[in-house]
Amino acid sequence: MSNSIGRDYRVTSFGESHGICVGAVVDGCPAGLRLSIEDIQSELDRRKPGQSAVATSRKEEDRVELLSGVFNGLTSGAPICALVWNRDRDSSGYEARRWTPRPGHADYTAHLRYGGYNDYRGGGRFSGRITASYVMAGAIAKKLLSEVLDVEVLAHAKEIGGLRARDVSVDEIRRNAEGNPVRCGDPETAERMAELIAENSERGDSVGGVVECFTLNLPPGIGDPVFNTLEGDIAKALFAVPAVKAVEFGLGRGFSPLKGSESNDPLTLRDGRVETETNRMGGITGGISTGMPVEVSVTFKPTPSISIPQRTVDIERMEETTLVVDGRHDPCVVPRAIPVVESVVAMVLADHALRAGLIPRVLECEG
Amino acid sequence: MSNSIGRDYRVTSFGESHGICVGAVVDGCPAGLRLSIEDIQSELDRRKPGQSAVATSRKEEDRVELLSGVFNGLTSGAPICALVWNRDRDSSGYEARRWTPRPGHADYTAHLRYGGYNDYRGGGRFSGRITASYVMAGAIAKKLLSEVLDVEVLAHAKEIGGLRARDVSVDEIRRNAEGNPVRCGDPETAERMAELIAENSERGDSVGGVVECFTLNLPPGIGDPVFNTLEGDIAKALFAVPAVKAVEFGLGRGFSPLKGSESNDPLTLRDGRVETETNRMGGITGGISTGMPVEVSVTFKPTPSISIPQRTVDIERMEETTLVVDGRHDPCVVPRAIPVVESVVAMVLADHALRAGLIPRVLECEG
Amino acid sequence: MSNSIGRDYRVTSFGESHGICVGAVVDGCPAGLRLSIEDIQSELDRRKPGQSAVATSRKEEDRVELLSGVFNGLTSGAPICALVWNRDRDSSGYEARRWTPRPGHADYTAHLRYGGYNDYRGGGRFSGRITASYVMAGAIAKKLLSEVLDVEVLAHAKEIGGLRARDVSVDEIRRNAEGNPVRCGDPETAERMAELIAENSERGDSVGGVVECFTLNLPPGIGDPVFNTLEGDIAKALFAVPAVKAVEFGLGRGFSPLKGSESNDPLTLRDGRVETETNRMGGITGGISTGMPVEVSVTFKPTPSISIPQRTVDIERMEETTLVVDGRHDPCVVPRAIPVVESVVAMVLADHALRAGLIPRVLECEG
Amino acid sequence: MSNSIGRDYRVTSFGESHGICVGAVVDGCPAGLRLSIEDIQSELDRRKPGQSAVATSRKEEDRVELLSGVFNGLTSGAPICALVWNRDRDSSGYEARRWTPRPGHADYTAHLRYGGYNDYRGGGRFSGRITASYVMAGAIAKKLLSEVLDVEVLAHAKEIGGLRARDVSVDEIRRNAEGNPVRCGDPETAERMAELIAENSERGDSVGGVVECFTLNLPPGIGDPVFNTLEGDIAKALFAVPAVKAVEFGLGRGFSPLKGSESNDPLTLRDGRVETETNRMGGITGGISTGMPVEVSVTFKPTPSISIPQRTVDIERMEETTLVVDGRHDPCVVPRAIPVVESVVAMVLADHALRAGLIPRVLECEG
Repeated sequence: MSNSIGRDYRVTSFGESHGICVGAVVDGCPAGLRLSIEDIQSELDRRKPGQSAVATSRKEEDRVELLSGVFNGLTSGAPICALVWNRDRDSSGYEARRWTPRPGHADYTAHLRYGGYNDYRGGGRFSGRITASYVMAGAIAKKLLSEVLDVEVLAHAKEIGGLRARDVSVDEIRRNAEGNPVRCGDPETAERMAELIAENSERGDSVGGVVECFTLNLPPGIGDPVFNTLEGDIAKALFAVPAVKAVEFGLGRGFSPLKGSESNDPLTLRDGRVETETNRMGGITGGISTGMPVEVSVTFKPTPSISIPQRTVDIERMEETTLVVDGRHDPCVVPRAIPVVESVVAMVLADHALRAGLIPRVLECEG
Repeated sequence: MSNSIGRDYRVTSFGESHGICVGAVVDGCPAGLRLSIEDIQSELDRRKPGQSAVATSRKEEDRVELLSGVFNGLTSGAPICALVWNRDRDSSGYEARRWTPRPGHADYTAHLRYGGYNDYRGGGRFSGRITASYVMAGAIAKKLLSEVLDVEVLAHAKEIGGLRARDVSVDEIRRNAEGNPVRCGDPETAERMAELIAENSERGDSVGGVVECFTLNLPPGIGDPVFNTLEGDIAKALFAVPAVKAVEFGLGRGFSPLKGSESNDPLTLRDGRVETETNRMGGITGGISTGMPVEVSVTFKPTPSISIPQRTVDIERMEETTLVVDGRHDPCVVPRAIPVVESVVAMVLADHALRAGLIPRVLECEG
Repeated sequence: MSNSIGRDYRVTSFGESHGICVGAVVDGCPAGLRLSIEDIQSELDRRKPGQSAVATSRKEEDRVELLSGVFNGLTSGAPICALVWNRDRDSSGYEARRWTPRPGHADYTAHLRYGGYNDYRGGGRFSGRITASYVMAGAIAKKLLSEVLDVEVLAHAKEIGGLRARDVSVDEIRRNAEGNPVRCGDPETAERMAELIAENSERGDSVGGVVECFTLNLPPGIGDPVFNTLEGDIAKALFAVPAVKAVEFGLGRGFSPLKGSESNDPLTLRDGRVETETNRMGGITGGISTGMPVEVSVTFKPTPSISIPQRTVDIERMEETTLVVDGRHDPCVVPRAIPVVESVVAMVLADHALRAGLIPRVLECEG
Repeated sequence: MSNSIGRDYRVTSFGESHGICVGAVVDGCPAGLRLSIEDIQSELDRRKPGQSAVATSRKEEDRVELLSGVFNGLTSGAPICALVWNRDRDSSGYEARRWTPRPGHADYTAHLRYGGYNDYRGGGRFSGRITASYVMAGAIAKKLLSEVLDVEVLAHAKEIGGLRARDVSVDEIRRNAEGNPVRCGDPETAERMAELIAENSERGDSVGGVVECFTLNLPPGIGDPVFNTLEGDIAKALFAVPAVKAVEFGLGRGFSPLKGSESNDPLTLRDGRVETETNRMGGITGGISTGMPVEVSVTFKPTPSISIPQRTVDIERMEETTLVVDGRHDPCVVPRAIPVVESVVAMVLADHALRAGLIPRVLECEG
């Protein structure tokens, strides 16, 4: 059903925002991968709230627990269940607004889809909190990609509220992004982005943005046409992240006004290897990796939770009403979404690298 | 494997550009749907080349044949195999450029992926011609959606080469799009688009564009979170169409500079039904249909086949060289891609409508 | 990957015999099903060891916990995670025999498959203990089938160590099976079966047997030819139960010596409904349910763990050796396998009933 | 949906008994396999009717055509579509008995499942003729297994109408089975089997039997626990063959009366390799291949088509009636089912060998 993704690296997500826990089962990770709690915790920590002034001040002390699949510090080939318990959930406010769906949220569609039986507290299964399960599954994928193929997945904030970072190198992202609260590779724009978020937060409003994600060292020849293209599988996985509304590869939307003579990437030889001079295609043609960095841009809509009054409908009484969403919310999801985008892309790449036979079913481990 | 898509409405594509045929097997279409050759042929005719000055002058006399799954004019519940034979294929030119991959095409990645065993003639399995199989499968999905749910899927050319149509109503698209060679709902812009294509064609160049697709009457509550969202499944299917590089829902990329107060869709009552005042979300929140029209924008890169000389590598001799792609090619894929986008979206909607139980496994037929 | 089964009712199993827990995620259970801990616990209790003299005296205090998917006592439509913690595991003996695979067990093949990284303690992922996850997932399926369709799944011990129960009615099974330690519908044979098990247990040996499983009230028309037949899907699921070596439907192996005139089930009218006079086919023809009771027979090999010395190979030193498997083991797996067989069959039936549209995605609940 | 099977070697079947054709699409066959029409035709010829006195005298001149996926005599990595056209179909008799379902056939369940829209002529999609698609897909799998892994799949008639062949070696099967009309490895019993079939045929009756299938040289370590076991996947595929009612591995049903001390296979060293002294398990433990020959027994019920009058129901008038099934039918399906069983087993083994990474995605071809 719909809570699993991937074929060879298969992730099943479970849990709700205000339920007992949020977890993931990873099936298909090869045996023999050294895997520690810390490998996963470090990624979860990047996602957790309360890290800075630009994020919600809620405290989620997410400590990952590994319930299966790791034996003597190495993956055993059995499915890996990882979870974080939900603690200190304050669900008191949710009963009051059960019948007044928040605009921009999934409250109303979830109500329809599940006949009102869905756990509506904090968005339940539709909450951004569910992405904690993606991050756990993605952290394992990242470790696998890094250990076996030296593949790195790296994202940063490209746009926030209309402010666009200058073009930066991957090295700049690696050096700068984790050093500023918005996780932008361009420190100057980062500062202005943070100010913009703060301004809107004070007004009870929120802003949208774009995350740019790169993969380094991905071997060429990965991807399965015609339907399981690398682009299609990455896009599908990204749309599982709440608030994502657009996915672009390479120049993406920017291809529209161009001519073929401006958009094709000429092939060339570099150190005896075939490469492209430019990388407008974003590292993928025909759904298959070219060996150039994969470049994907992900647009996040503004956080729908705003404390400015909004019109909605009381669906119990079937009458129009006005709603103010209180509580502590991220005024912009982009900064915390960076590790989520990386995780989701890593999950898909691990899956396709396994399909391509580039990662064996049993790793030759050092120890 | 990778040549099938969908769960309840499952499409398997086969065939190559210069092989014997291009075909599709549709598994999961309910029994009892009245289905004629004409239902499929009419859609194929919209995709076929040689329809106008803005498209390639190649002749593809694509006559669909139904090999299985239809009995006495009605679907029988068995898998439906539909195909078109490839006739009058001129493959003579392809041997010469076997070793010089065309920039922007999948020639090089396909060569890597299949170790050189792939049918390279005309792009083989990566050719735009493969979309004929999507159109056949999509035509059946359209008929099914239309007959059972009165759902309509409608696309038009929103942008071509930087020229953007004004905002048009669905009625305008229905009235205007098939009446001009670029299939744009805005006749004035359509004319300029056609001129722009012709200009670039004369120079041996090509242009990109954006297709905008709407679905009407789609019931609310369709879509399976968290991974099989309507957005994710539509996006994945669209990236199977050659040249697609970006997929956006609702305001899409346009959400980035907005504030929450500008982007949420307020809920309202209309004729006793819950609707949204605006439809910035493009008819989907939380991966589930809201009941408003689904709006998806698809960016096509410029046709990579251009007759302007391009740099490439002779991968047999491993030396840099220059390539001129001759032959008759569409100077812009957008006009012929319109029915393809509609077909792909219809396939996904049929799949999700079946999952949602909105279409029974056996139709109560009039006959 | 391989730890999930089912399409519309999808079960993912995780955990190891001597790991932290054994669990299941059920994805696809409709929203609105009343589900309590007790619904699952009662089935787990039937599987637990230490229930009688014919079973192992090990203590497994398996208390199910529901981690997600149930809200206010009703399923919410979100994936249901259920697990039991492993307590009081004594893994001390396993290190000693890590390198001497037990004949009849999966020790050697698991070692090969996972390169020695598998958790070998107590069979790890290949232990009969993993069936606790099937029972949890099956208990939910049973509840669903029973509530919505009044379908019942019922198994008993048909053969043990060569002793064969007389033909009994479903009512006799319902009345008698839970009342004797071997769970046989024929109390007289049950007594002799128990004695035979005890005799062999004293000698350190074990015995095999056959479980017979019936489904009542299954509507006709369920099952998806050609590959997802009811028989094929039930068989596949049953072979996931350790020690199963044969699966038969209706007369099964007994069809071989018969003639067509002796084996076809004549059709007849009973109370205005089409039925078959006999049910030699076991309730399925063409992979589709006929409306008659589904009858499936499952052969279990004798428990491979015996305390009689056996020849094996020390795969570390690569030399032949002799092994005595100590510890407390079931001298016959059949009695405890009864609820497991029922669970596995129920999982498949729930899946197919959902596919057939006989169970809606949202249940109309009384509350 | 239900007309596809396999994950990495995926087969989609289409066509009906009296429709236009019967075909298969194989997706996932590696690129670079030398594949000729003759590779497939030779297997089809073994399945075709009219080969001997013990089979139906109907003429099916099944000439395979390859519509895609093969380029210059080698597989290209694209999906392979193979089909046979249905010629000289005499459907005249079927209209008359449309409303009187044949006992033992799927006529009635198919009618229910597809609401009467199914192609009922000759069983339509439920006909034994559909197995031609399995044989085509299986012939490719056989070639792949043989070329890359030297794996051979070999079946013969073990039992017919109660006559049981003596235990024969694989060499005897290879030498003898194709030399007698029932395809039995034991020529003496073969003669009596043929007589028995002839006797029953004269009386208008039919007989059942058991096919025994072996795989040679299958590497150890293949199979994915817990749900995608080798046994489970083979069993599921075999139940897609009409008339199969039981599947057993190794001693199968014969394990029931045994003790553990009689049924475990002791491990031993042979030429420095770990093997088992006996092979009661049939080459699989824990769902994973041991390296010993896989042994599977498949019980076929007697052909349901008999010319002896049978009771049935006229489901149009809803009244009981009597039916005589005329036409030319196999009085025993076993002889023609031998290549079908081999094909189905080969499909599953190819799938699992690909999953195990034992077959690369691109073959290093001699040419």
